[in-house]
Amino acid sequence: MNFSELPTPALLLEKEKLMANIARMQASADRLGVALRPHLKTMKAAKAAEALMASGAKGITVSTLKEADYFLEHGFKDITYAVGMVPTKLPEAASLMARGADLKIMTDSLEVARVIATEADQSGISYKLLIEIDCGDNRGGLQPESEELLQIAGLIEDSAAHFEGVLTHAGQSYGVDSTSAVEEVAEQERNAVVLAATRLRAAGFTIDTVSLGSTPTGLYAKDLSGVTELRAGVYTVFDMDQQSRGVCVTEEIAMSVLSSVIGHNKAAGKILLDAGGLALSKDRSADRFRPEVGYGQVCDLDGAIIAGLYVTSVSQEHGHVRVRDERDYALFPVGSRLRILPVHACMTAAAYDHLHIVENGFVTGTWDRVNGW
Amino acid sequence: MNFSELPTPALLLEKEKLMANIARMQASADRLGVALRPHLKTMKAAKAAEALMASGAKGITVSTLKEADYFLEHGFKDITYAVGMVPTKLPEAASLMARGADLKIMTDSLEVARVIATEADQSGISYKLLIEIDCGDNRGGLQPESEELLQIAGLIEDSAAHFEGVLTHAGQSYGVDSTSAVEEVAEQERNAVVLAATRLRAAGFTIDTVSLGSTPTGLYAKDLSGVTELRAGVYTVFDMDQQSRGVCVTEEIAMSVLSSVIGHNKAAGKILLDAGGLALSKDRSADRFRPEVGYGQVCDLDGAIIAGLYVTSVSQEHGHVRVRDERDYALFPVGSRLRILPVHACMTAAAYDHLHIVENGFVTGTWDRVNGW
Repeated sequence: MNFSELPTPALLLEKEKLMANIARMQASADRLGVALRPHLKTMKAAKAAEALMASGAKGITVSTLKEADYFLEHGFKDITYAVGMVPTKLPEAASLMARGADLKIMTDSLEVARVIATEADQSGISYKLLIEIDCGDNRGGLQPESEELLQIAGLIEDSAAHFEGVLTHAGQSYGVDSTSAVEEVAEQERNAVVLAATRLRAAGFTIDTVSLGSTPTGLYAKDLSGVTELRAGVYTVFDMDQQSRGVCVTEEIAMSVLSSVIGHNKAAGKILLDAGGLALSKDRSADRFRPEVGYGQVCDLDGAIIAGLYVTSVSQEHGHVRVRDERDYALFPVGSRLRILPVHACMTAAAYDHLHIVENGFVTGTWDRVNGW
Repeated sequence: MNFSELPTPALLLEKEKLMANIARMQASADRLGVALRPHLKTMKAAKAAEALMASGAKGITVSTLKEADYFLEHGFKDITYAVGMVPTKLPEAASLMARGADLKIMTDSLEVARVIATEADQSGISYKLLIEIDCGDNRGGLQPESEELLQIAGLIEDSAAHFEGVLTHAGQSYGVDSTSAVEEVAEQERNAVVLAATRLRAAGFTIDTVSLGSTPTGLYAKDLSGVTELRAGVYTVFDMDQQSRGVCVTEEIAMSVLSSVIGHNKAAGKILLDAGGLALSKDRSADRFRPEVGYGQVCDLDGAIIAGLYVTSVSQEHGHVRVRDERDYALFPVGSRLRILPVHACMTAAAYDHLHIVENGFVTGTWDRVNGW
């Protein structure tokens, strides 16, 4: 089937671009001498994990335990759950481990570490724990100089649980738009996690994993000495957010939303699409550097950018495209189809149960995804 | 099960509040002398449609043909699909009608109307067509004074299709925050759709349906003379967006997201939740009148507002709550649970396959939902 015949809205994945993006990050990890543990929170698809493994990835990262369950079911055992663990989720982690998962969990909380240690002692389950480090993102994580770092490691080492190492994520890399600025962030990221590892080793702890990563820092870091693994996810497909920061070019964006023109509102100067806030997401993270992008870049069916045409606003099932001039109504008649490059691929993809794989203009497969919790 | 024991994040629906909200809008429709055709794009749940029908609703409105299919499967036949039809979706509409749906479709396009007329003549299927009117929302719709209005009606009447009437939606009612301003918008909405109906009747067309609606105008319109039916959806559960505009009070918000505290970042002054951009949506529509709301209002487990505590930023699986002062860390320890009142219920609910029904603090049921396309 030609992809343009799919019911709309539909989520398209261009396989050739996906494979090139996968190769690009793997080459970066190889150059930097670290293992690549891709973050599947973007793709959430077993077929994508297969492609990543075939290209050299070692293990996967997930953002929910439901993802962990899905990937385990599909044969992927080496899994890092990179969102803070809470005690109520330990039974689910234990169940995944009982089914064969080599699961790494994470916390930055002394209280949670204490519960994990106790539970490990009581159950005999050797939970593998990473400590989250804040490298300047100001999301989760302990400061690398903090005293709790040593306290948590000590608690875990004294229990039946296993102290695995340290992990950080430079989310602040999404806040800059030059290679040199990303290089600086990458160095902050490395410094923080390596400092934490160094302090722990100096205190006598053994550390297997020193993990960091984001798409920008993974691609532009100059040196990852002291680091064992790199995590990143959105690079697999990229999006307008990454493009707006110069991390990729539009030609590398592998994911798009196929949509139909459902109306012309000439009085309002708008073309209306059937891809709205749900089909595209309401993420506007390209705003910082390219506010004109709005909710997505409009492309023709071949995926070529239509300069100056964006999804300027959305309601639940409507995408509003401000026309450049009257001629756009003739160019894009009601019933015709357009493709939208999403602002934030992870958010957009989450509205879909599957991806339509496009190769040379034809649908060559359907990849299922896992959503929810 | 006490709802607080559910795995997080989870979508909660307080049944008592839902029923009161349903009664409130039904009373408004009754007072105004119009039928209520609730929009199921918010709830997307058959059990919600049952409750609405039991309270006096006549027929339902949907935003996707997948919703139409789901509700038909659950026995709801009288369905208006209130998003612009395109020719490629006609076979799906025909299939729904063949299965017994009394389906009303909509367009504002002469070209689409021409295809519908031709398809009706060729297939003998009597598609029921509404013409969409723009009452100032600047989304879809023809101007009520437009010539195409009469042309479309003429095309349809001359074919095997059935001309059903006119429909409008005052989306601009979300742009104001006073009862008097909503009253004015309601009058614009009524004027536009009634003017369109009057012109069509003067030209000799019979009109069964004169349809309008939005939650604010449905609740605060003073007069709906000339209108046959009212459509609205978000009133069933309300949200912080509606609260920010004074359409409801927080005590009426029936939907919330149960989440766990997964970390404290004291250096950054934040509590981190496991409800982030996916679990809450990235909708920020309360910004206009209450920018402090961010991505949601934080409540305790009883649903009581915690004054000054909001989800200030989100990443995919993290909600960031800026603490008021150091005492919040003790009040909300890691592992404890909080509820979030969503900014925009329609967007938030779309991330979940089901709603947990809460009555008197206990989970008394699970309602399935339909998502996607």
